[in-house]
Amino acid sequence: MTKIAIVMGSTSDMPVMQDAIDILKEFGIETEVDIVSAHRTPEKLFEFGKNAHKNGYAAIIAGAGGAAHLPGMVASLTPLPVIGVPVKSSNSIDGWDSVLSILQMPGGVPVATVALNGAKNAGILAAQIIGAADTTVRDRIMTYKERLKEKVVEGAKIVGSGSTMNSK
Amino acid sequence: MTKIAIVMGSTSDMPVMQDAIDILKEFGIETEVDIVSAHRTPEKLFEFGKNAHKNGYAAIIAGAGGAAHLPGMVASLTPLPVIGVPVKSSNSIDGWDSVLSILQMPGGVPVATVALNGAKNAGILAAQIIGAADTTVRDRIMTYKERLKEKVVEGAKIVGSGSTMNSK
Amino acid sequence: MTKIAIVMGSTSDMPVMQDAIDILKEFGIETEVDIVSAHRTPEKLFEFGKNAHKNGYAAIIAGAGGAAHLPGMVASLTPLPVIGVPVKSSNSIDGWDSVLSILQMPGGVPVATVALNGAKNAGILAAQIIGAADTTVRDRIMTYKERLKEKVVEGAKIVGSGSTMNSK
Amino acid sequence: MTKIAIVMGSTSDMPVMQDAIDILKEFGIETEVDIVSAHRTPEKLFEFGKNAHKNGYAAIIAGAGGAAHLPGMVASLTPLPVIGVPVKSSNSIDGWDSVLSILQMPGGVPVATVALNGAKNAGILAAQIIGAADTTVRDRIMTYKERLKEKVVEGAKIVGSGSTMNSK
Amino acid sequence: MTKIAIVMGSTSDMPVMQDAIDILKEFGIETEVDIVSAHRTPEKLFEFGKNAHKNGYAAIIAGAGGAAHLPGMVASLTPLPVIGVPVKSSNSIDGWDSVLSILQMPGGVPVATVALNGAKNAGILAAQIIGAADTTVRDRIMTYKERLKEKVVEGAKIVGSGSTMNSK
Amino acid sequence: MTKIAIVMGSTSDMPVMQDAIDILKEFGIETEVDIVSAHRTPEKLFEFGKNAHKNGYAAIIAGAGGAAHLPGMVASLTPLPVIGVPVKSSNSIDGWDSVLSILQMPGGVPVATVALNGAKNAGILAAQIIGAADTTVRDRIMTYKERLKEKVVEGAKIVGSGSTMNSK
Amino acid sequence: MTKIAIVMGSTSDMPVMQDAIDILKEFGIETEVDIVSAHRTPEKLFEFGKNAHKNGYAAIIAGAGGAAHLPGMVASLTPLPVIGVPVKSSNSIDGWDSVLSILQMPGGVPVATVALNGAKNAGILAAQIIGAADTTVRDRIMTYKERLKEKVVEGAKIVGSGSTMNSK
Amino acid sequence: MTKIAIVMGSTSDMPVMQDAIDILKEFGIETEVDIVSAHRTPEKLFEFGKNAHKNGYAAIIAGAGGAAHLPGMVASLTPLPVIGVPVKSSNSIDGWDSVLSILQMPGGVPVATVALNGAKNAGILAAQIIGAADTTVRDRIMTYKERLKEKVVEGAKIVGSGSTMNSK
Repeated sequence: MTKIAIVMGSTSDMPVMQDAIDILKEFGIETEVDIVSAHRTPEKLFEFGKNAHKNGYAAIIAGAGGAAHLPGMVASLTPLPVIGVPVKSSNSIDGWDSVLSILQMPGGVPVATVALNGAKNAGILAAQIIGAADTTVRDRIMTYKERLKEKVVEGAKIVGSGSTMNSK
Repeated sequence: MTKIAIVMGSTSDMPVMQDAIDILKEFGIETEVDIVSAHRTPEKLFEFGKNAHKNGYAAIIAGAGGAAHLPGMVASLTPLPVIGVPVKSSNSIDGWDSVLSILQMPGGVPVATVALNGAKNAGILAAQIIGAADTTVRDRIMTYKERLKEKVVEGAKIVGSGSTMNSK
Repeated sequence: MTKIAIVMGSTSDMPVMQDAIDILKEFGIETEVDIVSAHRTPEKLFEFGKNAHKNGYAAIIAGAGGAAHLPGMVASLTPLPVIGVPVKSSNSIDGWDSVLSILQMPGGVPVATVALNGAKNAGILAAQIIGAADTTVRDRIMTYKERLKEKVVEGAKIVGSGSTMNSK
Repeated sequence: MTKIAIVMGSTSDMPVMQDAIDILKEFGIETEVDIVSAHRTPEKLFEFGKNAHKNGYAAIIAGAGGAAHLPGMVASLTPLPVIGVPVKSSNSIDGWDSVLSILQMPGGVPVATVALNGAKNAGILAAQIIGAADTTVRDRIMTYKERLKEKVVEGAKIVGSGSTMNSK
Repeated sequence: MTKIAIVMGSTSDMPVMQDAIDILKEFGIETEVDIVSAHRTPEKLFEFGKNAHKNGYAAIIAGAGGAAHLPGMVASLTPLPVIGVPVKSSNSIDGWDSVLSILQMPGGVPVATVALNGAKNAGILAAQIIGAADTTVRDRIMTYKERLKEKVVEGAKIVGSGSTMNSK
Repeated sequence: MTKIAIVMGSTSDMPVMQDAIDILKEFGIETEVDIVSAHRTPEKLFEFGKNAHKNGYAAIIAGAGGAAHLPGMVASLTPLPVIGVPVKSSNSIDGWDSVLSILQMPGGVPVATVALNGAKNAGILAAQIIGAADTTVRDRIMTYKERLKEKVVEGAKIVGSGSTMNSK
Repeated sequence: MTKIAIVMGSTSDMPVMQDAIDILKEFGIETEVDIVSAHRTPEKLFEFGKNAHKNGYAAIIAGAGGAAHLPGMVASLTPLPVIGVPVKSSNSIDGWDSVLSILQMPGGVPVATVALNGAKNAGILAAQIIGAADTTVRDRIMTYKERLKEKVVEGAKIVGSGSTMNSK
Repeated sequence: MTKIAIVMGSTSDMPVMQDAIDILKEFGIETEVDIVSAHRTPEKLFEFGKNAHKNGYAAIIAGAGGAAHLPGMVASLTPLPVIGVPVKSSNSIDGWDSVLSILQMPGGVPVATVALNGAKNAGILAAQIIGAADTTVRDRIMTYKERLKEKVVEGAKIVGSGSTMNSK
């Protein structure tokens, strides 16, 4: 069965990137996780990028912070869709560097960028990519979206009643 | 066969969004194009978003500028992957509003955001999503990437020789 | 009597939005509060927006953070004035995304945007909108503005005397 | 009948602010237009602000650029709702100064801020404020919103057919 | 003898503005401190601004945060030099609003803006303005600058020796 | 009689800085103009800065763009008040570098910063500094401010009548 | 003799990067110029980066725009000093993406970043690096700096006399 | 033997700048550390800058925050390569002022800028500059880069196995 690769530039990105692992597990999609640093392990980056499409991945999630080159460099090496997660790491200027160095790829080499620290959404997007051709996964996404609604409805009940009392 | 929906908030986004149509045509992928304004035609947005997954689309490309709500609202309504193109429209503050209002989606509802005015990359990303499960399309992407390389090599020949003469 | 609807994208916006409820209570204006997520409960958003003008609201206050689409989407659905509160939520890039995705609405669909986390001012603005046609409410606003002055005068007494002693 | 005051800091703001005059005329709402510079005619600002609510205005639209103090200072002086239009004037840093010095008002003194150069939306918002208590005006806004839809539908026909031909 | 007026928009600006009071005391220059809110006490602002040059002030220091209109409005009312201190208050977006709404004054009405929270420098600048015509004060500034040098030289001794040991 | 020094980093700053020369001439204040580049003529900068207070200047206006060090370095060398003009030069990132590298001086060494390209206001501020101790110059500033008002009143007549016709 | 490699991501960067070639020619330093795209020719990037230190280069100048990964990726592959030139290309958001994606490299892999479009300074920096061990080149830099001064002095003569006439 | 000068504007920059001292010690390169404030000790700055190339330094590392003029002013005075470290000091606006006032130097006077607080990279860059002509040092850099790789590989082992267990 198809699976998703999750790579990140440093072990310090793990607390953010764990959200992608968790949500994909929730969707029943297998992940393979690795640390691949564009700047410190360029050979590993090349090996990983050149061969990713031979390893049964439907998509690759890549997270990095600061001058974040990992997602874009993986995208340069693979024909697979690459999802980039800008990480607000300690060496980042409020996250702007992470966002811009992942988002602003030149014509020809896209990276599907999600919100700053948005690893959960990267996982959902990966599931949606699988779901584009796999109705079982698409159905799980539809179920997931229903659960999102229900949680909001629950929250609305509590807030609605309480606040109305406060405000009348 | 699977196809890609391309929607945009206004006819004024067409010069930017045409790049997505063109590159998908180059990949031999059918597109359906429509104007759907989140703010002026919300009912059409709802119809489109609720039914998109029943119409054989593998993914949806949505472009908008300023307070760009179209990509995110489509994403809220469909289980399909949604690719957002921030358009630097005339009512935009240097494109920052377009980028941030598409990129910064909350957990649960991703939009795969590409660069400002990056409609070409949105098209390629859509092709990669189809290619995740369709090796014919993936092969076309690999061929496309080879052509990108060749163009750079051509450019390098001209620049390299000429500039070297200048600089020695 | 006329009343104000207050909606927000998530229960996590409540600590900010409570200020709007409180100040409107102070003005003796009834509020109805609900959680309506543009991205997680789009159908509820549509129901709310399409029918708001039939429910006796003079105006709608909508608060959201990040890629904040709730205020603009409500504005697309209702003829009522919509007041947008950009919330500096945890998934926001220093509040810039919240501000720009509420403020930068296209021509035809305004959102009356207040300061980042400015729910109190949203409440006052809602009272001013009622006061535009209701002199009782307008008088309360004039009284409120007098009280603001008095508080500054009180503060000035303490600072003025104390600091002058320090500085002479 | 109720009317709207439109003030701006300089005659150079007129090309932007004309949109507010025009759209209000379209809604059949009377406007009174004046140049009031917070920095060059502070006494006129005071006279205008202190007396505005005695002159039959439902709301005030104030446009200014750079360190734009006019909207906020008018709001400090009047109990009426004040709509601020950040103007991207020649002495502005890409409009950021205009936006922030109008939007970021302190608690107690709101300005209903619209998009950069968004004078048209300021006019619509003023109409909506009148419409909050006047169903004739509200109906005109509903009609206006219908016309917005129709224009998009017209545009969609042209683009849809033409582009589809290009893309198939 | 000539003196300096120090005004600020709120008592909450006092911890920042105290630096101006302290440094002017160090220079032996008398200060008068008051709370004048442009938005909550506009009449007091007018009284203060219109009469300041009759009260023996050589210059006015005005501090405010967010949409900071106090310095510019005082400058519109007085022929005296006005020094603006952008305060990074709690309702500020990282200080950018405070800076831009003080700095970006239109042609004709300058505000001498210092760094974010730079009340100390506002005090020194006020002393320099007095010193422009008063050699006693100018001499004190020259002495002050000598002391600044000495402190750096002291710091250099400690760091230089210690670090050199570390680094060899 | 007292006079004002005007220095700038490059001849290319002259079109902006001319405004300071012109307005000071209008106030009848003598100026001395020179090109002093902090980065290309550091010795000249030192000579100028160390001796400025011996040459009868009441204040120094310094304009520069990009990494604009001239105003701050002059301020480090002189006890005179230094007015900094951030110039939006061709090598500037939208003027942000010019503004921040002049404004954000450390405690102890103020630069009185005016708006981006605000050389006219720098000239007025210099006149105000002279006027702090010289009532003749102060009177001229008060006259100047009256003329500013009159111009606005003139503009208001034209706009008011014309626009009102349009809008009724 | 030692030489400098100059690489850039695209032929469209050539007008900017030519300044580096020209200034190095002026210093009598040999350059080798090539187009190496991190995203379109990753293999060429690897070849270039892994072998650069074997080819007699003292340093590498790398220019790129948008999500500019070329300088950082070259730096990851070579022990040589890498000078990065952020190019304000057509696909850049006002140059901020180019600057941040080159400047904000993680600890361990520096890129010596120069100003936006600052290719001339990249060339001078490269000469300074050679000059660190080669007094002939260092002397040329000292001579170059003298010429910079002379040009300013020339400009000062013209401006000084002309403007002084204007201003007196 | 050749050595590196490390200067900074204030003792408060020491915690950041220590990283440069430490890494250079690791490379066996001698450093000399001093406090040189462009704004408080301009004479010391001049002495230091004019004579640096006579003291056997291969390069100078200069760190400063806010309106950070030290690196650029040193660069104006010396023919040596100058490496600038933008320090996110307490008086900085999120580091943007530090970065822009060091990076955006005019043509003719480069500063090799590293990331915000990137003193470690400044040290490595200084070593690379020595290594441009000294193969012993270059070999140490190559060894250092190998160690960087090994640390990533170590981290990958832990994360890879653990996370994979979590995610399957």
